[in-house]
Amino acid sequence: MTEFSAAAAPAAGAATPEDLLAFKRAFRRHASGVAVITALDPDGNPVGFTATSLASLSAVPPLATFNMARSSSTWRAIAETDRVAIHMLGVRNRPVAEKMAGDNAQRFIGDHWRAGPGGLPILDDVTSWMVGRIVERLHVHNNAVIVVHIEAGELGDDDAPLLYHKRQYRTPGDVV
Amino acid sequence: MTEFSAAAAPAAGAATPEDLLAFKRAFRRHASGVAVITALDPDGNPVGFTATSLASLSAVPPLATFNMARSSSTWRAIAETDRVAIHMLGVRNRPVAEKMAGDNAQRFIGDHWRAGPGGLPILDDVTSWMVGRIVERLHVHNNAVIVVHIEAGELGDDDAPLLYHKRQYRTPGDVV
Repeated sequence: MTEFSAAAAPAAGAATPEDLLAFKRAFRRHASGVAVITALDPDGNPVGFTATSLASLSAVPPLATFNMARSSSTWRAIAETDRVAIHMLGVRNRPVAEKMAGDNAQRFIGDHWRAGPGGLPILDDVTSWMVGRIVERLHVHNNAVIVVHIEAGELGDDDAPLLYHKRQYRTPGDVV
Repeated sequence: MTEFSAAAAPAAGAATPEDLLAFKRAFRRHASGVAVITALDPDGNPVGFTATSLASLSAVPPLATFNMARSSSTWRAIAETDRVAIHMLGVRNRPVAEKMAGDNAQRFIGDHWRAGPGGLPILDDVTSWMVGRIVERLHVHNNAVIVVHIEAGELGDDDAPLLYHKRQYRTPGDVV
């Protein structure tokens, strides 16, 4: 076992480069599903990003959470709007996962989306999408946990869920 | 596309059986990594559960989140303690994922764990574990989002990360 410690950080909220590396190494052992969050900014322009933090919080009522940095280009929109769209991505959607994680000026250039309920940007051909209302924004340092009450959505054609692990997109493998 | 709506729910916070099914069907299109959260209850007994909601919130400072129901057998401990251990599971750890999701009276019967920092229960042979301090407990209806500031941990032997999708444990497959 390789031990690491963040307790020796020089100040509350700070971390040494070694702690940062250790935390990242630990989380690199974790895999996640891939989602895309979209919204409209205060000027009505579409914004969005690829998220690996989407999780269910409760089924009754239907609540989901995702995490983001408040330094993100999308933060201003998420801070000011009360509505978002959440998309579940299948393996066939890898190109859009990369696009929505790339240059933010390019993310909505193309015909891969359309305006859905309330004008929210809805990505084409995803395995599922849901729209909902932001009910909590928990600020922790320069980050936020967002809680969404899901109000509607659609199921698309099924596909193997897109995975992210060690900076690579993957398909699920065998049942173990 | 199969449309569903939770907006027609009879009351705020409520959902119809159809909404519940639709939300669950949408989240069944999402895959997740598998973690185990452990803590000590107020009597000093080990408690824990298998979580599919673990996510990184920030690397600097090192913050992680997980979600849970406040009706869970582990909630009393998480509500009252300020320290938890988070374990990343590899494919070789599938048996312990099942054990920590099963009968809560049986979860710590066996030699699959030991007391670690501060007496926290640490599972053997996981790919990584971290201990930290709970810095936020956000209550939303009968659920909670828990934010943990990671303070220390260890990396174990590497392994393919254990996945959960459509009620089955899986290994990751090909890069796409």
